[in-house]
Amino acid sequence: MGEFDLLAAVRERLPPPGARVRLGSGDDAAVTVPGGATATSVDALIDGVHFRRETATLTQIGRKALATALSDLAAMGAEPGEAYVVLGVPPDLDRDGCLRLLDGLLALAVETGTTVAGGDVTRAPALSLTTTVVGHAPEPTDLATRAGGRSGDALVVTGEIGGAAAGLLALESPDRAAGLPAETSEALRGRQLDPTPRLGAGRALARCGARAMIDLSDGLGGDAERLVESGGVGIRVDGAALPLAPGVEEVAAAAGRNPVELAVCGGEDYELLAALPPEALDDARAAVEAEGVALTEIGELGGEGVEVRLPDGSLLAPCGFDQLS
Amino acid sequence: MGEFDLLAAVRERLPPPGARVRLGSGDDAAVTVPGGATATSVDALIDGVHFRRETATLTQIGRKALATALSDLAAMGAEPGEAYVVLGVPPDLDRDGCLRLLDGLLALAVETGTTVAGGDVTRAPALSLTTTVVGHAPEPTDLATRAGGRSGDALVVTGEIGGAAAGLLALESPDRAAGLPAETSEALRGRQLDPTPRLGAGRALARCGARAMIDLSDGLGGDAERLVESGGVGIRVDGAALPLAPGVEEVAAAAGRNPVELAVCGGEDYELLAALPPEALDDARAAVEAEGVALTEIGELGGEGVEVRLPDGSLLAPCGFDQLS
Repeated sequence: MGEFDLLAAVRERLPPPGARVRLGSGDDAAVTVPGGATATSVDALIDGVHFRRETATLTQIGRKALATALSDLAAMGAEPGEAYVVLGVPPDLDRDGCLRLLDGLLALAVETGTTVAGGDVTRAPALSLTTTVVGHAPEPTDLATRAGGRSGDALVVTGEIGGAAAGLLALESPDRAAGLPAETSEALRGRQLDPTPRLGAGRALARCGARAMIDLSDGLGGDAERLVESGGVGIRVDGAALPLAPGVEEVAAAAGRNPVELAVCGGEDYELLAALPPEALDDARAAVEAEGVALTEIGELGGEGVEVRLPDGSLLAPCGFDQLS
Repeated sequence: MGEFDLLAAVRERLPPPGARVRLGSGDDAAVTVPGGATATSVDALIDGVHFRRETATLTQIGRKALATALSDLAAMGAEPGEAYVVLGVPPDLDRDGCLRLLDGLLALAVETGTTVAGGDVTRAPALSLTTTVVGHAPEPTDLATRAGGRSGDALVVTGEIGGAAAGLLALESPDRAAGLPAETSEALRGRQLDPTPRLGAGRALARCGARAMIDLSDGLGGDAERLVESGGVGIRVDGAALPLAPGVEEVAAAAGRNPVELAVCGGEDYELLAALPPEALDDARAAVEAEGVALTEIGELGGEGVEVRLPDGSLLAPCGFDQLS
């Protein structure tokens, strides 16, 4: 397989570019006319670090590579625009495998209105996908950063959490989900293998005045710490209020884990965590629900550091988030 | 070493961001206000594929990762703006090694006015650097693509070619450069290890009316084929006119290679190849020389495909460019 042959096959599969793209894949660089503000983020998925080819299909891996990158744009409240993908191809991945990866990625690109405007293909010792995404907003101030939370703000989270960590436990050992209805255990595995970037919910939260926002990639505990580092205001989480995904309690029990601890310390839910002025809460909930996503108040900003109170009243010990992954 | 610890150390080293950057590294995404047109390109360097840690220092590797990415912006005639860097860290690379890589990259960022506005660090089986660069121009039409060359256009190349391939031959076997003055063999190795993106020359060529332009990463022969594929007009190269770097003839002879074939088929010179209306040639040469770079006419556009005539009048056989690298 030659690089240019594969690139040509990829280009044939690309849908028509979005209106901002004046020159797409196939030149030295893509040419766009952004207008307004752009939000740019990069994300890498590497076999053996972020996924395992034994437990995920190539289509799922390609889709997840774009999903995790777009999740960062969701956390800014940006409209997705362009993506640039570098595919590292190991010796045991053939041309069809590469195209299956890209088909997974392109399906999500079409669903989200993202143009794959460029990329590169290279040999690599392990399968890797590095994705750069560019999102748009009329003004920089329309985008939500991590830094603006104030003491007394409501802490909210979209959707349900803990599902991705429980899904990983179920993928590692299917017995842990044996007592669940089939659709519940399937949904948990789906949270791990096929996360959904909360793009509409993120724009709704930014529009409704979210003062700080982050996506949950490392886990609620670790990502809340990032918000505290950026904003300088502590976060208090009420563990009893967390919207656990169905099946998390059962899988956690089967694995000998506390379900709240699993939801707080487990990563990859790709939900959004945001600080809102309390008076904006009702509007924000309605706007996020209009996107088909729940919004739950799970605590407030105040104090120092991150404090997670378990349902029994005790405090959860820190998770040890500082791992190179 | 933790990911966040390393990221914090990196952030402390970053110079102040450029004027377009409203929010740099450390949030879910960087925020910029581009204005006008942007050119975006991605490039990956992987140990064992694009470099070898045995023959390049970490500082050189970091610098080259940004240089090769910026070379694509040079080929568009864009002004460099922002870079986003994903560092894949193998088990045997420590924190100091990572920082040496980034110091090399940041030195070139400062020299070229590029803001490192974001990135990511991840574990990886081999050292890898994936760099996304964003360049700027007032209008899309100010940027040069690969596609606009016309029959009768002059074919020009910046600087000197063949040096990177000869440098690689000298790195693989120092005997091949033993007969050269020390500064000449050092310069050849420098062409391989520390390429210079021709940013000023690229902008000068675009301004002077370059109708098609590409940077020489795969080699003059292969990159000329890319121009022909994009523009639909053939290219005739006069091998006797090629500006070979000093020492290329000697190293090629020591390796049993034809020096013109080495310059045409060897990659990584990162010079620019452009098609110019003949009447623009004098202005373009003066504008490129004002950037401290030579500009040489090496052929013309016309016919079909790429034809390279050797000094003895025979035609060079195709190089076999279609390799996955």
